[in-house]
Amino acid sequence: MTIKTKHSGILLFIILHLMLSPNSMAQNSDGRPPNFVIIFADDLGYGDLSSYGNPTILTPNLDRMAHEGQKWTNFYVGASVCTPSRAALLTGRLPVRSGMASNEHRVLFPNSKNGLPASEITLAEQLKTAGYSTAAIGKWHLGHKEQYLPTNNGFDYYFGIPYSNDMDYLGNADYKKLALQNPSGIKPEDYNVPLLQNAKIIERPANQHTITKRYTAETIEFIKENNDEPFFVYLAHSLPHIPLFVSKEFEGHSKRGLYGDVVEEIDHGVGEILKVLKEEGLDENTIVVFTSDNGPWLPFKTHGGSAGLLKAGKGTTWEGGMREPAIFWGPGLIKPGLVSELGSTMDLFSTFSSLAGVEIPNDRMIDGKDISQTLLNREASPRKSILFYRSTELYAARLGDYKAHFITQGAYGEFGERQEHNPPLLYNLSHDASEKFDISKENPAIISQINALVEEHNSNLIRGKDQLAERE
Amino acid sequence: MTIKTKHSGILLFIILHLMLSPNSMAQNSDGRPPNFVIIFADDLGYGDLSSYGNPTILTPNLDRMAHEGQKWTNFYVGASVCTPSRAALLTGRLPVRSGMASNEHRVLFPNSKNGLPASEITLAEQLKTAGYSTAAIGKWHLGHKEQYLPTNNGFDYYFGIPYSNDMDYLGNADYKKLALQNPSGIKPEDYNVPLLQNAKIIERPANQHTITKRYTAETIEFIKENNDEPFFVYLAHSLPHIPLFVSKEFEGHSKRGLYGDVVEEIDHGVGEILKVLKEEGLDENTIVVFTSDNGPWLPFKTHGGSAGLLKAGKGTTWEGGMREPAIFWGPGLIKPGLVSELGSTMDLFSTFSSLAGVEIPNDRMIDGKDISQTLLNREASPRKSILFYRSTELYAARLGDYKAHFITQGAYGEFGERQEHNPPLLYNLSHDASEKFDISKENPAIISQINALVEEHNSNLIRGKDQLAERE
Repeated sequence: MTIKTKHSGILLFIILHLMLSPNSMAQNSDGRPPNFVIIFADDLGYGDLSSYGNPTILTPNLDRMAHEGQKWTNFYVGASVCTPSRAALLTGRLPVRSGMASNEHRVLFPNSKNGLPASEITLAEQLKTAGYSTAAIGKWHLGHKEQYLPTNNGFDYYFGIPYSNDMDYLGNADYKKLALQNPSGIKPEDYNVPLLQNAKIIERPANQHTITKRYTAETIEFIKENNDEPFFVYLAHSLPHIPLFVSKEFEGHSKRGLYGDVVEEIDHGVGEILKVLKEEGLDENTIVVFTSDNGPWLPFKTHGGSAGLLKAGKGTTWEGGMREPAIFWGPGLIKPGLVSELGSTMDLFSTFSSLAGVEIPNDRMIDGKDISQTLLNREASPRKSILFYRSTELYAARLGDYKAHFITQGAYGEFGERQEHNPPLLYNLSHDASEKFDISKENPAIISQINALVEEHNSNLIRGKDQLAERE
Repeated sequence: MTIKTKHSGILLFIILHLMLSPNSMAQNSDGRPPNFVIIFADDLGYGDLSSYGNPTILTPNLDRMAHEGQKWTNFYVGASVCTPSRAALLTGRLPVRSGMASNEHRVLFPNSKNGLPASEITLAEQLKTAGYSTAAIGKWHLGHKEQYLPTNNGFDYYFGIPYSNDMDYLGNADYKKLALQNPSGIKPEDYNVPLLQNAKIIERPANQHTITKRYTAETIEFIKENNDEPFFVYLAHSLPHIPLFVSKEFEGHSKRGLYGDVVEEIDHGVGEILKVLKEEGLDENTIVVFTSDNGPWLPFKTHGGSAGLLKAGKGTTWEGGMREPAIFWGPGLIKPGLVSELGSTMDLFSTFSSLAGVEIPNDRMIDGKDISQTLLNREASPRKSILFYRSTELYAARLGDYKAHFITQGAYGEFGERQEHNPPLLYNLSHDASEKFDISKENPAIISQINALVEEHNSNLIRGKDQLAERE
């Protein structure tokens, strides 16, 4: 972890610039702010990359990205299921504020009426004000009606599926049973998911066998076409969410079976994207981040991923549901190393806005923190806490090393029923990442501090109107 | 993972040489066979390095070693507790053959009468025949009487403690309780463990606060003194076995608490050793391997380590007891990459013998395989199976991807009582490393293959006389 940046001059310039004016633009020597590429996997768990401990999913491209950049080990998403997690990333706000969390339905469905409210400001809209070219490639899941699509949310271009790849199901078999008993019986045509280009359906059902490599190709094409201006690509892979599909070239590529093949195809695509950034001379002024929307979907057994040493998975507020791999790469910008500081997908909104010189909106609560000094300079992260919502209820809160669970509940038939805890369960996540050893009795003062954090949060919480409940 | 070796000429020479004569010496251009350094941690688990997924134990030196070399993800030890595991590594033989496994006592104690039989051939004895200088630094645990010490087992030099660091206990408190309630009450002087130089006690009780850095310093001194001849150092750290101690410089170094501090001090020492190898111009002709003797001691909670995504820990034949991190480094020799092939500490005996041009003994069964072509050339590993013994009983066997458990049993009060299984439990470890999904019913043919492997093993098994049972 001692790779020296080759362009310390630029780095020094950026650092001085930021010190003088914290919110101002990070520019290279041409005065151009950095490009951003967010690669967002779907249902990939904390333990699903080789650099995060997986023994048979081999991800050499992501591992090299981690080695050359920053590997974060305490990085969280805003919710443990698709729709609210994506809303959190793109708005920098807890889903409970935007109305993208609901007690009726945890995500949007093909018969949902609504989507991300127009009043919300996305990271793409932020970056448009600084002249960025913007593209959303992949799964959206923030509303499939035209007014909710990426092209109405700050993205110049969209190519992808509007909701999860297991929706619009036409078959009559149970995927879970098929996955466990007869995986070859699962076909893309059983899922009538449309593939959109901008607001137009160009393929239905989407050919999910080739979708991963087409997302990568679209990303590369967009980068090449926009290499003379700052750009932002939000590449949200629709896999490894079940049903799992892989291209011919990656069938049997992994020892981990189909799930591993899918992740290794995504890893390969990451390698292709980094290669093109180098070829185009953009690597010194581009930040690429890889993470995932929530933890692994455990009931699908080997068709679901692994949370590694973390407890439980998707749908829960245990660590396995909401802590994710997070790798930041940018040879000219990111100071390499292991980072065990706290971070959140919501911080990408504030950080990339800051690096692009765009003001953070001051007419609303923004939950994102500006972690640019941690990325560029390995300074301590300004983020000191994480709030763990399930739908519209706060289940747990982390402050520094400590996490208090006020409510625990499994998901998808695993990890138990809803249970309230008073005093809350308390874990030292730095010493006990697996949440095994409750230390609430010994630490009433820490619980008081976390209670104070929660009270402050509640005192100024304005809940958005539920956008997920209404259906047609 | 695309680092190119800078000395492909030497590598090509070695490969051609090995192709022509598989057992012959791997030499550099001076005709000198490679040096070997084995760094063996104590009770460190599969999930205790950042490169194997730990979020708060940061091991940048080992991670860089993995990035520049080979990171193995299916590498096993010969037993899940200290004494038999060490016997397996040094003899290349299952402990049941050498008598270093027993149903009476699982390891040697200060009042044990015996040790590794003189008839056994250690890796050090092998390498002595090729003119190597040899040193054992650290914990021995193969017999503390003079005739059993390293200096009577092929090592020119010894510096370390003869058994575990929690033995010769003088205090009257329970370590486990102290570790959980009052860690500051644990003192090195409560453990009357002697520190030996060759066969002489030079300090008693050993100052365990400084022992890790002294082991590193001794290793570096030995390397510097022997840099003009081939050498073999077996550096067996006595930590992070409990009780945990760390030097002043590493107190509070880690976010993981004392356990993390200890591992980070070991990691720092690894970095110092690699630095010296480079400074001495030895890095192109030295192979360094890092691994551990068995899985984490889980009942000690945060004073014990983590097996990551693997099940259970020390003392068991679940994966968490016997699969370990294993990193091979050697810029001039090892072809970098992720290796998910099977390997075992017993293979070090055969592989290093082969690379040094020393014949493998043919008067006894050797369980080690020569994995040199996997190390040098990324060829498939010749190892296709792993046998999981607990004491003198075979509990489980792995063949390719599949592991059958004939008997399961927890250890130290966790993970349940002894239970026999017929048919055995069966897991596909490549798809299901966490041993969650028993697939025995669907796979009788695979069970038959594993049964055949076990029958063949049993048919020519000669059990050594129990060396662990007798006490004074």
